[in-house]
Amino acid sequence: MSLTGYSDLVARLKDRGARVVALQFPAGLKRKATEVACTLKDEGFEVIVSGDPCYGACDLAVDTLRYADVLVHFGHTPLRDPDPRIIFEPFLIDFDFSVVHLAVPFLKTKKIGLVTTAQHIHQLDVMKAALLRQDIEALSAKGSRGCREGQVLGCAFGAARIEGINEILFVGTGVFHPLGIQLATGHRVVALDPFTGEVQEVNAERFLRRRHALIERARAAECIGLLVSTKSGQERFRLAREMASRSKNAVIILMKEVSPDELENLGFPAYVNFACPRLAYDDQVRFPAPVITPQEYQILLGEKEFGEYSMDELE
Amino acid sequence: MSLTGYSDLVARLKDRGARVVALQFPAGLKRKATEVACTLKDEGFEVIVSGDPCYGACDLAVDTLRYADVLVHFGHTPLRDPDPRIIFEPFLIDFDFSVVHLAVPFLKTKKIGLVTTAQHIHQLDVMKAALLRQDIEALSAKGSRGCREGQVLGCAFGAARIEGINEILFVGTGVFHPLGIQLATGHRVVALDPFTGEVQEVNAERFLRRRHALIERARAAECIGLLVSTKSGQERFRLAREMASRSKNAVIILMKEVSPDELENLGFPAYVNFACPRLAYDDQVRFPAPVITPQEYQILLGEKEFGEYSMDELE
Repeated sequence: MSLTGYSDLVARLKDRGARVVALQFPAGLKRKATEVACTLKDEGFEVIVSGDPCYGACDLAVDTLRYADVLVHFGHTPLRDPDPRIIFEPFLIDFDFSVVHLAVPFLKTKKIGLVTTAQHIHQLDVMKAALLRQDIEALSAKGSRGCREGQVLGCAFGAARIEGINEILFVGTGVFHPLGIQLATGHRVVALDPFTGEVQEVNAERFLRRRHALIERARAAECIGLLVSTKSGQERFRLAREMASRSKNAVIILMKEVSPDELENLGFPAYVNFACPRLAYDDQVRFPAPVITPQEYQILLGEKEFGEYSMDELE
Repeated sequence: MSLTGYSDLVARLKDRGARVVALQFPAGLKRKATEVACTLKDEGFEVIVSGDPCYGACDLAVDTLRYADVLVHFGHTPLRDPDPRIIFEPFLIDFDFSVVHLAVPFLKTKKIGLVTTAQHIHQLDVMKAALLRQDIEALSAKGSRGCREGQVLGCAFGAARIEGINEILFVGTGVFHPLGIQLATGHRVVALDPFTGEVQEVNAERFLRRRHALIERARAAECIGLLVSTKSGQERFRLAREMASRSKNAVIILMKEVSPDELENLGFPAYVNFACPRLAYDDQVRFPAPVITPQEYQILLGEKEFGEYSMDELE
């Protein structure tokens, strides 16, 4: 992993003439803060650690730049057009790429799309080569939202929109990304967990049933809160405002963190989430009321049919 | 209470020519959001509700002013020099002022200081009159941090610094304010809860024993995080930076909400709190590590004796 050696980082900070350095880590890496901070202090830098929650590159601690010359963001690749004062230190995880042969029996075609997540994107080419040795031609496409070729985010499936294929192999953990890819592209999706070697074909049916039920619960609500986050890469105020103007009972709610406690405090009977799309999908069980996506809200408002269901993505 | 009628608020908003109005409520009043929002929508305003946690006038949702013409902040009186685009709607609670006679047997002198909190400050004069009928002369003083005469905050005890008295009557709920007043002034303090009629003399001994133990636990920590909040009225970055420069093992941590979860994620063995002073005092039991005040940190660093203990206050 890339956090063990800091000599390269120290050199880059010195090159920039940085004196005060801010550090930001996502939840899973926050415990590295003391170690990295002390190393940089010993090198003569003044150090500020961002203590706010962080879930992605959409969630940059830009407020630290009021005090620091440079912000070092660990664990994510940059989105489009980041502030030039920010250095990104992605967190790359190697796995044995030959594991992709486990997916071959599940594939129905010889020409597929291949996508993965930020941690594994440096192994895209070796995965392609390993598949080719199994007689499978794997294609990749440019990612959306600043993603590298072949890379998807939970809110950006652009790299899965590949011409001339009907089937996609997703290499990574969890079912959210492959589900999103299936719904965003309409292609057959096979998901391979590179650590466990588990392979499964994605089936969106149960997911769609659950979303349908949520829309119906939100439809019964007397008033509905439109959740807009102030985070740098998640702010969709304009879209929310435009949708609020089309609905008599909608109120915009501005907040940094969309948290179960605060939704409970506010007490609205239903919400539409304009912040990180994954909140509406992944965190529904933690919320005290239905939280639907802007696309689902269009269905509720009668502007779209449920048959036209699409995933919420950020640009 | 002042939230039931909005006609005056609507008139003031129209006078200002406001079109987009943001609303902010502290936790205990957040459930009013839907009602106030709908009333204002019906009056033709575009409405934005702030969904972030809010604990005081130090915690203004200034970010809403990027989208709104006016912010209406409910429940608190303004601190010094607030943004002129902010309207404050304090939350006033009446009680039967004659209840002050219950405190008389606990007083040792005939000339005392009288202090209370924002919710009751409109009844200061009637309390004074009721005490005078019992032959007690009650004096009050100008508050600090924008407080009205006789009003204290959990972080500002200026109104308790009254000349020519040795004894103070505090009217309000909880033991934190009277404890702070006792430690800030050195006077004898009698606390009266105006709702239950309960009277008690404040004793700071147990509190000081607990704080002493926390300082000793923090002293054993290999590194210490200095917590600086980015909230408008709580930002003490300069003081933290100055103290960090005097200690080899201190790292500044910048965060909006100082929450138990995030301190757990960061994993520092001890913290110094430069945000809301009440966090270190009231929320210690919720935190995973000792959280001490800047004044206690001075004791830890050997710059002050424990005998010179003073409360943390904001300017």
